[in-house]
Amino acid sequence: MISDTNLIETVSEEAELLQTENNTEQRENQDVSDNLTSTTNNRPNQGKNVGNPPAPRRRVIGDRPRLVDRTVSEGQLLVPKKNLRQQDSEEDHPDFYEFRAKDLLPCKGGAGLTTKFLKEVLEVILEYVQGTFDRSSKILEFHHPNELRERLHLEIPDKAENLDQILQDCQNTLKYCVHTGHPRYFNQLSTGLDVISMAGEWLTAAANTNMFTYEIAPVFTLMERAILKKMREIIGYKDGDGIFAPGGAISNLYAVMCARHKYVPSCKRRGLSGAPNLVLFTSEHSHFSLRRAAAILGIGTDNVVYIDTDKRGKMSLEDLENKIQQAIARGDKPFFVNATAGTTVLGAFDPLNAVADICEKYDLWMHVDGAWGGGVLMSRKHRHKLDGIHRADSVTWNPHKLMGVLLQCSAILIKEDGILEDCNSMRAPYLFQQDKHYDVSYDTGDKTMQCGRHVDVFKFWLMWRAKGTRGFENHVNKLFELAGYLLEKLKSREGFKLVHEKPEHTNVCYWYIPPSLRAMEEGTEKQLLLHKVAPAIKARMMATGTLMVGYQPLGDKVNFFRMVFSNPAATKADVDFLLDETERLGRDL
Amino acid sequence: MISDTNLIETVSEEAELLQTENNTEQRENQDVSDNLTSTTNNRPNQGKNVGNPPAPRRRVIGDRPRLVDRTVSEGQLLVPKKNLRQQDSEEDHPDFYEFRAKDLLPCKGGAGLTTKFLKEVLEVILEYVQGTFDRSSKILEFHHPNELRERLHLEIPDKAENLDQILQDCQNTLKYCVHTGHPRYFNQLSTGLDVISMAGEWLTAAANTNMFTYEIAPVFTLMERAILKKMREIIGYKDGDGIFAPGGAISNLYAVMCARHKYVPSCKRRGLSGAPNLVLFTSEHSHFSLRRAAAILGIGTDNVVYIDTDKRGKMSLEDLENKIQQAIARGDKPFFVNATAGTTVLGAFDPLNAVADICEKYDLWMHVDGAWGGGVLMSRKHRHKLDGIHRADSVTWNPHKLMGVLLQCSAILIKEDGILEDCNSMRAPYLFQQDKHYDVSYDTGDKTMQCGRHVDVFKFWLMWRAKGTRGFENHVNKLFELAGYLLEKLKSREGFKLVHEKPEHTNVCYWYIPPSLRAMEEGTEKQLLLHKVAPAIKARMMATGTLMVGYQPLGDKVNFFRMVFSNPAATKADVDFLLDETERLGRDL
Repeated sequence: MISDTNLIETVSEEAELLQTENNTEQRENQDVSDNLTSTTNNRPNQGKNVGNPPAPRRRVIGDRPRLVDRTVSEGQLLVPKKNLRQQDSEEDHPDFYEFRAKDLLPCKGGAGLTTKFLKEVLEVILEYVQGTFDRSSKILEFHHPNELRERLHLEIPDKAENLDQILQDCQNTLKYCVHTGHPRYFNQLSTGLDVISMAGEWLTAAANTNMFTYEIAPVFTLMERAILKKMREIIGYKDGDGIFAPGGAISNLYAVMCARHKYVPSCKRRGLSGAPNLVLFTSEHSHFSLRRAAAILGIGTDNVVYIDTDKRGKMSLEDLENKIQQAIARGDKPFFVNATAGTTVLGAFDPLNAVADICEKYDLWMHVDGAWGGGVLMSRKHRHKLDGIHRADSVTWNPHKLMGVLLQCSAILIKEDGILEDCNSMRAPYLFQQDKHYDVSYDTGDKTMQCGRHVDVFKFWLMWRAKGTRGFENHVNKLFELAGYLLEKLKSREGFKLVHEKPEHTNVCYWYIPPSLRAMEEGTEKQLLLHKVAPAIKARMMATGTLMVGYQPLGDKVNFFRMVFSNPAATKADVDFLLDETERLGRDL
Repeated sequence: MISDTNLIETVSEEAELLQTENNTEQRENQDVSDNLTSTTNNRPNQGKNVGNPPAPRRRVIGDRPRLVDRTVSEGQLLVPKKNLRQQDSEEDHPDFYEFRAKDLLPCKGGAGLTTKFLKEVLEVILEYVQGTFDRSSKILEFHHPNELRERLHLEIPDKAENLDQILQDCQNTLKYCVHTGHPRYFNQLSTGLDVISMAGEWLTAAANTNMFTYEIAPVFTLMERAILKKMREIIGYKDGDGIFAPGGAISNLYAVMCARHKYVPSCKRRGLSGAPNLVLFTSEHSHFSLRRAAAILGIGTDNVVYIDTDKRGKMSLEDLENKIQQAIARGDKPFFVNATAGTTVLGAFDPLNAVADICEKYDLWMHVDGAWGGGVLMSRKHRHKLDGIHRADSVTWNPHKLMGVLLQCSAILIKEDGILEDCNSMRAPYLFQQDKHYDVSYDTGDKTMQCGRHVDVFKFWLMWRAKGTRGFENHVNKLFELAGYLLEKLKSREGFKLVHEKPEHTNVCYWYIPPSLRAMEEGTEKQLLLHKVAPAIKARMMATGTLMVGYQPLGDKVNFFRMVFSNPAATKADVDFLLDETERLGRDL
């Protein structure tokens, strides 16, 4: 980022801050036109909160270059400000601390400064992106909340900070971010940093529009239609509908709501007071958002009936049918079964065809929560795990998980066209005018729960163009290969124990057993000690910043690591590192 | 963007496409390592869908520079590919059509190409941004959905497109986007393109994380806390809680849900079946999301009681109290009153203190939907319109509207700390482990309706740093001044008629009455004709691309224009243009 730091004389921080304090008042009284002609060499105005000591200068990733000696006195600016706005050469770095946000576009004559500022922002981001993929850099620099708060200088000023400070704010923010794209970041189902998807998000920001009408989002509306159609085809739907939602929990909420609308259509107008007791079924390993949906929709979490699972975490069909029958016998109204395609912890796939048979038999809405497993449909080798998905009434599929699209990107796909709109439409006349001059069936706003809706589709569409369907297939297959590699390593390595030996997704769950516990007799005491191992190692991982993997207990199983592959930057060498590093951090426990 | 186009020989499109067809298969079989050494001059692979004719080359904003003659044969590449990745000079534009997404980071040696690609993306965006603020450029190039679909080439390929094509896709997308930051774009409550906020969104994309835990979003978690605290202080809350939500409709949904939890705490577990009939009250001019919230939450839209408004659109206190009493008399359970601070169409402010008195009297949850009007709190001159807001139990405030933060940025602020978490918590053990090594009260995920949650706070925080509180105040005051200016112009200009003369917000509503209607007698026939004027002018606005303003009917009022100021790029000259252009487009009607 810096090519000419050597040219710049370093200013003593104290002297600089002193000057800041003195110049602030004077500075604030200048308007844009003053700025254009002023040659006063103002100092950055950090630390000017009344009563607070001056904050230290924040040059955290590295000093940005300054062609102007910051100690020169009035009149000595090497590049007059007025000219800076008109120069386009890459070599002229403007003196950002002379300018503020109001000097940028749409300020008259602000184009040059805007270009330079955004190029400098790009440099800051590029440095972060390159660091992200560098295995020798830390994933994070961990600090406890109170310590981090002190380092961040989050205070919101009364007066505008200068653009130099804003760039430093950007650097400082990134310095303390967790590098979620780092090849050894495995902490969540969403990992990685896809460059194309990131570029797509930048363009989305520039377009700054709202998905609710074709009128103001014509391209993205058509793109969303095209992508949702493609996703439905991959599922095996002939027709249908769908929408991008702010995350998988909301997609699941849509599914339960559409089902409720189908089985209790009076609910939309008259509510659930006086309606029968609706009951939904989902496995004990399913995502908590099903339970949350029941809470939100007025169904109640007690009416979520949990179905037993087998050792691998797959829903028991016998238990499902029994519990449906029990609910009917109680006089409740079963209406919805969620089958998970890729559970959060074990990565299990519920048997979709068999669940579909039961749903048909009892006339229940079948939903597939494929937030995590939906991406497996891209792989001809592995998609058999979702056989029967086309029989579901609705599917949640988060491209921001396995497929590596930037967060947020989640879709709810519905087999029956029309129900999404029936369920949600409010016909607001100020927004969805029926006398517009174009085909208003393209307006999507009346089938969502939202009003304003962020454009989530472009970064996905662009990434799909850039990878191709086959590229996504390779991407998914590669992640499965890495999971297989880890599985084999774990089977033969001393001190590691698999939670179960045949994972279906890229989740691989295991305990690390430190030498001190290996000889211990099996029993409660050992389990209680083992329960503390994963949190202790995780704390060390975060302190050293070398690795991030999640852990949790599950049912009667004490805390274990859930390794999960969704990060396309990872390689087999990173898997080896994972095991070595876990051992290094945990062997003294 | 282009400095050296002249150096490049133009290739015949047909020859180029022909070559594409031939080289595609061969190209696809190469892997990354082949790419590094290959010198084959492959062509962009557009139009290669089987059975489709080749699509025309898309150079829509302008050809990007190519230092390499695209007609050279194998071995003649001026810059060998391998070197391209290692060169950093701005002058070396790589031949993007030689590369694909898989050649970017995290591909080994991909740093140079990634930098160059992202710089080119920046150029594409900068051109769009500069065009956005250029009054001589069109706001949009309108096409009906079927026409636009043909121009967009949305098809999703099996095989990866090259990076040149990806850049063209970006250009083509932006070409057909509505320039929502254009100084004459007034179509929604969210307009404008703030450069700092956009930069913030770019950085957010690079950080690609999820708000649910401090563990993976430490900076943004603390930032959200700081910003929400500041917003609560501005409201006048001493304490409380809040969260950023995906849009104002969801923020309102949170408010109704928290109120439901307070008044029917059993609902979370047992649902609403068997609960009393909950009733909520909101003015007839309030946002449709209140009604939608009632539908989602199982309360039912029939249980939304609409309160009459006066001529200016303000809620009638007498009617509110009458209807509360009627509901009680019916045996229903009133629980929630929404007061709007800035209605969508007329910009009315309900009398908050008086509504608060009634809510206290009847023990009802008071919510203020300040999605649109919340930003007025930043202005010491205008904030009296929201007097009493500190008495509300909850407030929706969308910085992405009046304050110009990029969409999406909406907050729900709650007076009572704890209720948000009580209401939403599901205690998922795999995500919100209580044995983490840091203070887990910082994890926000268990008080939201979502699981994954996009980082909406950074772009707002950065913008606030860059403008300062006083900058936001000036921003808001300026928008009010423009509204005042338009109001005065409308009062004296022939052919325009105000819907009402004393708007409270920056909404200014009016009819344009073409000469043909001016002499007509008042009555149904004239009203029916007038109803068609605004849609006809709007269609012409979109066809010419010179101006965008919304219109709608309201109650017994036929279609009128709702001019609204939220776009900081607008000036008085743009207001003059608005009136002249409306007249130019409509005088023959």
